[in-house]
Amino acid sequence: MTMTRANDDVVALARQLLACPSVTPATGAVFAALEDMLVPLGFTVDRFVVGEAPDGPVENLLAWRTTGAGPHFAFAGHLDVVPPGPGWTSDPFAPEIRGDLLYGRGAVDMKGSIAAFVAALGTLSDDLPGTISLIITGDEEGPAVYGTLALMERMAARELRPDLCVVGEPTSSTRLGDVVKIGRRGSVNMWISVAGTQGHVAYPHLADNPVPRLVRILAAIDALVLDEGTDWFQPSNIEITDMEVGNPTTNVIPGAANARISIRFNDQHSGASLVERISAIAAVEGGTVMAKISGEPFLTAPGTLSNLVSGAIRQVTGLEAELSTTGGTSDARFLSRLCPVVEFGLNNATMHKLDEAVAVQDLRDLVEIYRLIVERALGQPVGA
Amino acid sequence: MTMTRANDDVVALARQLLACPSVTPATGAVFAALEDMLVPLGFTVDRFVVGEAPDGPVENLLAWRTTGAGPHFAFAGHLDVVPPGPGWTSDPFAPEIRGDLLYGRGAVDMKGSIAAFVAALGTLSDDLPGTISLIITGDEEGPAVYGTLALMERMAARELRPDLCVVGEPTSSTRLGDVVKIGRRGSVNMWISVAGTQGHVAYPHLADNPVPRLVRILAAIDALVLDEGTDWFQPSNIEITDMEVGNPTTNVIPGAANARISIRFNDQHSGASLVERISAIAAVEGGTVMAKISGEPFLTAPGTLSNLVSGAIRQVTGLEAELSTTGGTSDARFLSRLCPVVEFGLNNATMHKLDEAVAVQDLRDLVEIYRLIVERALGQPVGA
Repeated sequence: MTMTRANDDVVALARQLLACPSVTPATGAVFAALEDMLVPLGFTVDRFVVGEAPDGPVENLLAWRTTGAGPHFAFAGHLDVVPPGPGWTSDPFAPEIRGDLLYGRGAVDMKGSIAAFVAALGTLSDDLPGTISLIITGDEEGPAVYGTLALMERMAARELRPDLCVVGEPTSSTRLGDVVKIGRRGSVNMWISVAGTQGHVAYPHLADNPVPRLVRILAAIDALVLDEGTDWFQPSNIEITDMEVGNPTTNVIPGAANARISIRFNDQHSGASLVERISAIAAVEGGTVMAKISGEPFLTAPGTLSNLVSGAIRQVTGLEAELSTTGGTSDARFLSRLCPVVEFGLNNATMHKLDEAVAVQDLRDLVEIYRLIVERALGQPVGA
Repeated sequence: MTMTRANDDVVALARQLLACPSVTPATGAVFAALEDMLVPLGFTVDRFVVGEAPDGPVENLLAWRTTGAGPHFAFAGHLDVVPPGPGWTSDPFAPEIRGDLLYGRGAVDMKGSIAAFVAALGTLSDDLPGTISLIITGDEEGPAVYGTLALMERMAARELRPDLCVVGEPTSSTRLGDVVKIGRRGSVNMWISVAGTQGHVAYPHLADNPVPRLVRILAAIDALVLDEGTDWFQPSNIEITDMEVGNPTTNVIPGAANARISIRFNDQHSGASLVERISAIAAVEGGTVMAKISGEPFLTAPGTLSNLVSGAIRQVTGLEAELSTTGGTSDARFLSRLCPVVEFGLNNATMHKLDEAVAVQDLRDLVEIYRLIVERALGQPVGA
């Protein structure tokens, strides 16, 4: 086993990525910086730009290195960041160490993780059999239309199909290594509309008030128990997030009533099945439903991959990681179509906030964890 | 019996009133015009202005004539009108006869009725024993804060208390004389608010969504059956007239939810009893209620006064008037505290509309109906 680079390089690598402004959707310099890190490590790098304003253009980077026959391990992530906003102590795109922390937009979400993965690659022996790939998008924080989905098409065209995948999202909660995500709930928003006939409150027989019908629909929806949760998922949950009639006049019966609901659902459901179910409830009262499914649920049942990740975490930090499926959606929802996926990365306490920062020691520990994961992944039998 | 003026004067009198712009709240010329009509008929006229912008100033006119001991008959009405709006065929304040109709804002609601009553006074024999009064406000179409209530205080100060009262509102529906109002429902609006705790839809345990609680409140309100109606009133009715959350963000659980209801209620209820009842329903879910009672219900049970009015209508038009309690509120809700009150006047088809107009023949017939009513009212035993 040959150690080609020092673990400490992670701070220098992270600084290089953080110094490139890359508010979503991202293109250009930050991808060039990553390419410059990967090429010396023997990776083939394929950068491509897709999409148009306002959701694009988006740059994506696919990189791979094959060393003989063996498993294909993929690391996925994003180089775009959310806007920094005003009020930072130092320039969000001029990374700066103060105390034990490295500050910069994207420090934990997730240029720091990408730097740690690249640093880990530099510490690997170069004779591990198998393929290592990086699936890096500039469109994770935005609509994600031109990002990971486009990368997956590119991978299919090149016949690159990973066997195991780790997404480097900042999953740690209070200490590096305390949480690994093995799944995510799905998410769907629905807009419910009920039409009626406007009129004067003194003459209700000449009007048809849509509000009581909407109230009955919402009461039925609120009474739904979608499931009781599973071993790995909390119960699916419905929130009524808005209601709107827009009638300023006290003596007028309104002609339309609207509401919006948001469902976060586990793998007992699909977005389509929920849309069908809510539509049926609304139809009883003459209501109609428009829906936007922003993500289907996925679960990588505890097993080879989660054991591998948990074991690496335990060895470096001593922590027993919680296997979680909570929180919002991530690009893992797409990648889970290809192979088992888990998410593991830095502490998320400052993500999307002012003065986003990562502990330098966490970066160093994460390099070691990622190194152990890759080495063990490439040691797995193919299709594990 | 001396006929002091010709019935045909009603058109000239109506024209004089219609020619004075008097959008609510009204003062000035239109009251001077009415005073000039009443003084020659032997009436004492007391005009007074109350209130300040925006609901005032409002002019009111109290007039009375006593001819020996006898019953006190009061005619009540208003000289203010709703704004004409654009699009009239002729100037809304330049009355014009086209065909069989006299056009002008207030033609039926209700300067035409006032002109008919004054014309009727001119045809009365002047030796009927008793008191005739006119209770005329410039604030009926607005908030009615400085109008009939102020006139009632003025009457109390002058120890004027009618035994019977007719309000000249346009109650006729398709033909002059088809409808007499013997009561009105009460009206109350309530604003229901439920507070919660805002949060992210992915973390509902950290939030408290107020919408399901508001939905349960509204479902309970919608299920209320206040009453089955009475011999003279239709069932009380609740309408949910607005709902508002105001949350534009799909992944946010809102922190507050609001709704507004409007109740039109019969004499089985009071405004206060309904506020108490709705407040108790809302309180179960932590909701609070603000209320505005805009009118209590009243009923002048069919009897002496309605018989007297119906009989006069029958004699002039041949119609059997329907005794109704439908529609909105009117100043009769205040006057009913003093004595039996019914409402009878012109055809309401064009009231509050463009090209408001009254049939000239209706004006003439109404003079005769009002004449018969007054003559028979003064012939009643006091306290009938």
